[in-house]
Amino acid sequence: MNFILKNENAVYYECGFSCDNVIFLKLGSEAFFITDGRYTTEAKEYIKNAEIIQSEYDLQKTARKLLRKHKIKKIIYDPLEWSVEDFYKLSSKLKCHFKKEINFSQKKRIIKNDKEIAILKQAVKLGEKGFERFVEFLRNSGIEKNEKKLFFKAIELLTNEGELYTSFDPIVAINENSAKPHSLPSDKILKNNDILLFDAGIKYKRYCSDRTRMTEINGNFDFNIKQKFQDKKRQKIYDTVLKAKDEAFKRVKEGVKAKEIDKAARDIIEKAGYGKYFVHSTGHGVGLDIHELPVISKRNETILEENMVFTIEPGIYIPGEFGIRIEDMIVIKNSAGKIL
Amino acid sequence: MNFILKNENAVYYECGFSCDNVIFLKLGSEAFFITDGRYTTEAKEYIKNAEIIQSEYDLQKTARKLLRKHKIKKIIYDPLEWSVEDFYKLSSKLKCHFKKEINFSQKKRIIKNDKEIAILKQAVKLGEKGFERFVEFLRNSGIEKNEKKLFFKAIELLTNEGELYTSFDPIVAINENSAKPHSLPSDKILKNNDILLFDAGIKYKRYCSDRTRMTEINGNFDFNIKQKFQDKKRQKIYDTVLKAKDEAFKRVKEGVKAKEIDKAARDIIEKAGYGKYFVHSTGHGVGLDIHELPVISKRNETILEENMVFTIEPGIYIPGEFGIRIEDMIVIKNSAGKIL
Repeated sequence: MNFILKNENAVYYECGFSCDNVIFLKLGSEAFFITDGRYTTEAKEYIKNAEIIQSEYDLQKTARKLLRKHKIKKIIYDPLEWSVEDFYKLSSKLKCHFKKEINFSQKKRIIKNDKEIAILKQAVKLGEKGFERFVEFLRNSGIEKNEKKLFFKAIELLTNEGELYTSFDPIVAINENSAKPHSLPSDKILKNNDILLFDAGIKYKRYCSDRTRMTEINGNFDFNIKQKFQDKKRQKIYDTVLKAKDEAFKRVKEGVKAKEIDKAARDIIEKAGYGKYFVHSTGHGVGLDIHELPVISKRNETILEENMVFTIEPGIYIPGEFGIRIEDMIVIKNSAGKIL
Repeated sequence: MNFILKNENAVYYECGFSCDNVIFLKLGSEAFFITDGRYTTEAKEYIKNAEIIQSEYDLQKTARKLLRKHKIKKIIYDPLEWSVEDFYKLSSKLKCHFKKEINFSQKKRIIKNDKEIAILKQAVKLGEKGFERFVEFLRNSGIEKNEKKLFFKAIELLTNEGELYTSFDPIVAINENSAKPHSLPSDKILKNNDILLFDAGIKYKRYCSDRTRMTEINGNFDFNIKQKFQDKKRQKIYDTVLKAKDEAFKRVKEGVKAKEIDKAARDIIEKAGYGKYFVHSTGHGVGLDIHELPVISKRNETILEENMVFTIEPGIYIPGEFGIRIEDMIVIKNSAGKIL
């Protein structure tokens, strides 16, 4: 099966190295890593099972030459990895059938092997340490900082001052900003009694962690899953989201469809009267990409299998007031869900 | 002129707000910002000149409905902004001519207005402060840190602890790692007499700065453009790169072709015998994107005009030994080049 890849993580999965300008070709038993002069030195250091080719033109042209030289008649590509223009450059002059397969690499990666699960487990553990360091920092050095400063401090504490990478820009959102599911850090300053949402993760050996916790800044606040709020509405919504997460988690097992997990969470939130405030899917796969397969959404028919890894993260967002989201990463082991 | 945009910065340029899941449509005098429920609250806060549409399906479907409703017969799109799949979803069911225009938005943005130049100038100034803070940090707290720690500290000092964003992951590379033009931070520890390459920038009001300096860790090392090296080869190569940069800069004026700037730098490096070690182009435009138009490369025929902004950054990279790159940002003002 011949295939061609362009996505950085898709390429990493095949050969253990990647960069932001690469085409990877698997042609029969041979493999080729095409890049430009900026990356060949490192590529040669890390890649054992593919030939490194330094492209003197655009990478598409070099790939085209190789496909011609090897007389390739048929090759799989992922139409999400290629821009219209790059794909045109690659394919328009070739007598080769490019077979479209959406999420080709993510599909290969949907079932993790035990080594990957061990790495993801370690990623989650290191991510949790970031949460602990962040709470400790808030308690010890005073809460009165704006979201931008908190955002930066979060990165410092998540990465242990650069030892790790974050898996995405952490979300540190206060009160009404937490009602924006992808809030950007503002000048808003954290104060007592505020609600604080923290959604963050790190990368360990390129694999991502992803987690969301909430707290109310009061007394010995923490990011534990049990939270006490002084305000009744906050408490009711928090408890609803937590119950949604728990019910979704209980539904996880081998053979169940992704949409059934979503439904379990959505039903709880709808029953509590907040259905229209749950504006996203219940979860997503996690691996080399922070968002990968399976998608845990309303309409996804994917049947869950052993060794799949994904988040469960229901949320309720009341515009102008606050939002609540709770998120954990799950692996399916011995046919049941297990929190990573 | 109808057009459709998907790129985050392209959209920002039109309406002053953006996010990572958006389609922007300009249909005659009307404009539409299509996004999902995660971003509509913020979008409504910031966007004045476009209607915000919360998409309940994939954004392509919502865009398709709008194009149908408005009976659009012809619209411009950039084939670099669209994945093969998203464009297929957008266009395949419509009787509308999608006119391909590569770099449509970047072409609109190639000539900066005075407000943008003032912002870019401020970005460069704030970026330089990061370089100063980084040197000060190295001098005061000891050099013996690994590249990962230096990388993180650089981000802290560039962003002033989260007040700003970096415009890209800074490159902090020691000795042989500086020979990789896009080196990743390693566990290698900085020591006396080492060569250190620092390539970094920040964003101010979303506009990028970009700058590279080198130093040898010795006595009162700094990131000034004049550098003294103890080793003769290092000095010769540094002086060659600096001369290449200066000669390229001298060639900058209104009416000159981009490739002539590249040639001026390349000629100096080739004459010194290092031609094959200059493995990239001489520069690139800078604006909302860290890499935009004009590209200052061997083959680019673009004629330089007043108010264009780009880098000049020749380099010589000796694999296994070290690399030298020096980079400044240039604006064309009163028909001549001016270092920002």
